[in-house]
Amino acid sequence: MLDGIQAAEMLKGVRGSDPVNRDALADLIEKVSRLVTDFPEISEMDLNPVFATKDGAIAADVRIVVDFQPHEQRYRPSQDEIVKAMNRIMKPETLAVIGASAEDGKIGNSVMKNLINGGYKGTIYPIHPKADEIMGRKAYKSVKDVPGPIDVAVFAIPAKFVAQALTECGEKQIPGAVLIPSGFAETGNEEGQKEIQAIGRKYNVRLMGPNIYGFYYTPANLCATFCTAYDVKGTTALSSQSGGIGMAIIGFSRSAKMGVSAIVGLGNKSDIDEDDLLVFFEQDPNTQCIAQHCEDLKDGRSFAEVAKRVSKKKPVIMLKAGRTSAGAKAASSHTGALAGNDKIYEDVLKQSGVIRARSLRDLLEFSRGVPLLPTPKGENVIIITGAGGSGVLLSDACVDNKLKLMAMPDDLDKAFRKFIPPFGAAGNPIDITGGEPPTTYKNTVKLGLEDERIHSLILGYWHTIITPPMVFAKLVVEVVEEMKAKGIHKPVVASLAGDVQVEEASEYLYAHGIPAYPYSTEIPVAVLGAKYLWARGAGLIKE
Amino acid sequence: MLDGIQAAEMLKGVRGSDPVNRDALADLIEKVSRLVTDFPEISEMDLNPVFATKDGAIAADVRIVVDFQPHEQRYRPSQDEIVKAMNRIMKPETLAVIGASAEDGKIGNSVMKNLINGGYKGTIYPIHPKADEIMGRKAYKSVKDVPGPIDVAVFAIPAKFVAQALTECGEKQIPGAVLIPSGFAETGNEEGQKEIQAIGRKYNVRLMGPNIYGFYYTPANLCATFCTAYDVKGTTALSSQSGGIGMAIIGFSRSAKMGVSAIVGLGNKSDIDEDDLLVFFEQDPNTQCIAQHCEDLKDGRSFAEVAKRVSKKKPVIMLKAGRTSAGAKAASSHTGALAGNDKIYEDVLKQSGVIRARSLRDLLEFSRGVPLLPTPKGENVIIITGAGGSGVLLSDACVDNKLKLMAMPDDLDKAFRKFIPPFGAAGNPIDITGGEPPTTYKNTVKLGLEDERIHSLILGYWHTIITPPMVFAKLVVEVVEEMKAKGIHKPVVASLAGDVQVEEASEYLYAHGIPAYPYSTEIPVAVLGAKYLWARGAGLIKE
Repeated sequence: MLDGIQAAEMLKGVRGSDPVNRDALADLIEKVSRLVTDFPEISEMDLNPVFATKDGAIAADVRIVVDFQPHEQRYRPSQDEIVKAMNRIMKPETLAVIGASAEDGKIGNSVMKNLINGGYKGTIYPIHPKADEIMGRKAYKSVKDVPGPIDVAVFAIPAKFVAQALTECGEKQIPGAVLIPSGFAETGNEEGQKEIQAIGRKYNVRLMGPNIYGFYYTPANLCATFCTAYDVKGTTALSSQSGGIGMAIIGFSRSAKMGVSAIVGLGNKSDIDEDDLLVFFEQDPNTQCIAQHCEDLKDGRSFAEVAKRVSKKKPVIMLKAGRTSAGAKAASSHTGALAGNDKIYEDVLKQSGVIRARSLRDLLEFSRGVPLLPTPKGENVIIITGAGGSGVLLSDACVDNKLKLMAMPDDLDKAFRKFIPPFGAAGNPIDITGGEPPTTYKNTVKLGLEDERIHSLILGYWHTIITPPMVFAKLVVEVVEEMKAKGIHKPVVASLAGDVQVEEASEYLYAHGIPAYPYSTEIPVAVLGAKYLWARGAGLIKE
Repeated sequence: MLDGIQAAEMLKGVRGSDPVNRDALADLIEKVSRLVTDFPEISEMDLNPVFATKDGAIAADVRIVVDFQPHEQRYRPSQDEIVKAMNRIMKPETLAVIGASAEDGKIGNSVMKNLINGGYKGTIYPIHPKADEIMGRKAYKSVKDVPGPIDVAVFAIPAKFVAQALTECGEKQIPGAVLIPSGFAETGNEEGQKEIQAIGRKYNVRLMGPNIYGFYYTPANLCATFCTAYDVKGTTALSSQSGGIGMAIIGFSRSAKMGVSAIVGLGNKSDIDEDDLLVFFEQDPNTQCIAQHCEDLKDGRSFAEVAKRVSKKKPVIMLKAGRTSAGAKAASSHTGALAGNDKIYEDVLKQSGVIRARSLRDLLEFSRGVPLLPTPKGENVIIITGAGGSGVLLSDACVDNKLKLMAMPDDLDKAFRKFIPPFGAAGNPIDITGGEPPTTYKNTVKLGLEDERIHSLILGYWHTIITPPMVFAKLVVEVVEEMKAKGIHKPVVASLAGDVQVEEASEYLYAHGIPAYPYSTEIPVAVLGAKYLWARGAGLIKE
């Protein structure tokens, strides 16, 4: 499936890269490409290592995965078609709830409540076989009875009624159906899923789901879901293949006061998948960062193409579940996902400029922190710390997250030394020592922001009576705001070591655009590392 | 320094392990050992790879680190001497505060307040050149003026007065001095540190610090520190080389309601170090788990010997800061620590049965969770999850943390299937699906605890209206307690996906001995993995 990308990636394993050998390599790659083109059954091919001499290139180890089952071509509309349909689905002016109900405890009731209480300003059409009115809205027996166009239909009916209602949506020319119901491929009902896919194609209705919690789009105050309403607005759009992970996103987002522009359930991905979301969010002015949880990619090549383009504009973060063989096995029995070889995902995500989250918490923390940080202009990172011990751990974290601790020029070293006690350590980390008053933090942070050779700051705070946590937090925000007013925008993250008051101080910093964590030296640095990873991939940093 | 351990470890890099080659290897190792013994200047030696044939063994790559500076022998009392002194220091009946003060803001005042307000029941002797009484206690001009013995002296005076006061402590035969003052090796005052070390040796006074926050020993309500008082009792004893990290421990412990038996600052480690603490906590009935942050080990061989013994009885967790070259460089300018080659630390910690934490949060979370979990009797781990998506991520986490997902026997698979819907997935993870009532969680968790072939449970909860978070938490605690009453003790950890109410449910579970985390699939599994790592090292699990 991803042979083209792999062929390019093969060079990585090549021993010997002097110019003489390049011809031999080019020749090998060309032969491999021809092989792969000629035999579509080859789904994976890995040559590693390749020994290249001037007489030719030899692959010492070759792995070929063949698949003799013909692949069904996945439906791929044009980018314009996707944008047009997705804009109506995600930002509908009119919306039908198929299976709307006035009865507490019913999914169709929860959806109605969320739409109304969430503050959605568009028109809601309840669809119900008998009712005349539901929750103050005139009800219709079918979407076909509704006068005027409908942008999206939210399904809250059992699986067995979906096909019929979806056909009616098609006849009504509704461009999108949000299929909350379960009981399709995930329960072994492959036929039922194929049936609705066929209806969707026949009438050109894009399908979200089935087997999902629905979706949230906060700029429109739209909660098209049976879960709790969510209303904290922000610039990150998240999606999840799993409902459980979707609920974790909601809980974390609320708890961490992380604003989101959207939370979307993708479930069985019978039609709409990560690609479609990337295309929509790429052009959505309310979204600045895109984070996705997935168990598989239905069309890896298409994802890679779209992600490569989108990640140049907005950070894309991915938590790929089923990394390990045990995880992949579990994914297969969960959503029927074919998790595939993780090495290939690793390559694809890397080449697409996607930030790969290794854990659910990383996905959530990156989603929260990455969009807040300005894009760094270069690789020079400095650590300013009151706690020498934090400085050591922060340095370790820099290496772990591929951040470059700036080699401190003499004049800058001297400039920092002016502000710190003689027994403090300049260099990098700049250890201002623990007993210092607020002015020392202030002067050194200010210098770090002002000097053009420095591109990013990591702060290590140590709780003392002389500079209490909130004093530190406020002074940092003050200096950063002052510099912003002068046009200086640099990423700043902070690690706070201290008694429980550091939690409030961290929240204050976060609320002012500075990702800050109590009791952790690694998470703030990982967030900064994620921003760098993206910025490098997007070509925004001069090496 | 650690050549012996390295020699044993060298076998790892050896190609070919058939019996014929063993003799050749044994011969090589013997030669290397002799070399290292003959040349004490060799401080590190690494042979990798070694090719062994029946004709002999050849090392293809050899790395030798030599150090021509003669090493000073570090003071190492006998185990009995350590126990005797440390018991008086950590559990003193009488205690002197040198530099006690009635004046707010002074360190000697903070120490007095913490001792008194912390509820310490022993006798406190304030030492002050002029005062007759401080905070209701009779004050003395010198420890030598105090009638009767003193177990420990806490120093709250400037560095320049330490030597004189320490000499008086020696003359008074006080076995321990807690040296809060900074201004020694960490500021370049190597001479000052050597001076107090010499006094300590001359009079046999063990020195904690200098350059520390002091220490807490909660079973005695003892807060011998200038930081805030800490009083949440528990069974983990923590120590840190850095004050900043110590403050992070205090904040996290309070916030997470993690009880501790002790928190100890080691600072410059002029004398008392990780070994001494291990020896004390080994025999301390109030401590069941030992967690240490360090930037270096002053005597790696001694640590390895003690840790190997102690970790057989109680889990030992270590966060070694300065893992990376950048971190090591920072450590060197922070506490003058010689962080050394991390590969050696990795080997030493592994062979000593020490759980290595990779981050500050891991150190803290392992400290909190590991002592709560009963020791698993075997390697069979099962996942019971309401969220299929969590099941996938939990499976990934099991592989990451070297946990073995049990291959489900047919009869057990059938037994689980009885409780779950037909479209749920048995096998492992056992996916009970999201829409299930409390009884489904209850029945499956009960079965997991009852069946003898299962040794540990990982639970994945998905927030629904049918089984709300606190209902889940309470039923799990109920079943676990019921089984405990029957003599069944198995580790159970939980990952909760849902809206913010899962935070309260996680706290409830944790308070009842079940490490539980909201919005994370990886941390609960890492905690269980840490317990397994320890249990395997201690020989408590049959493979």
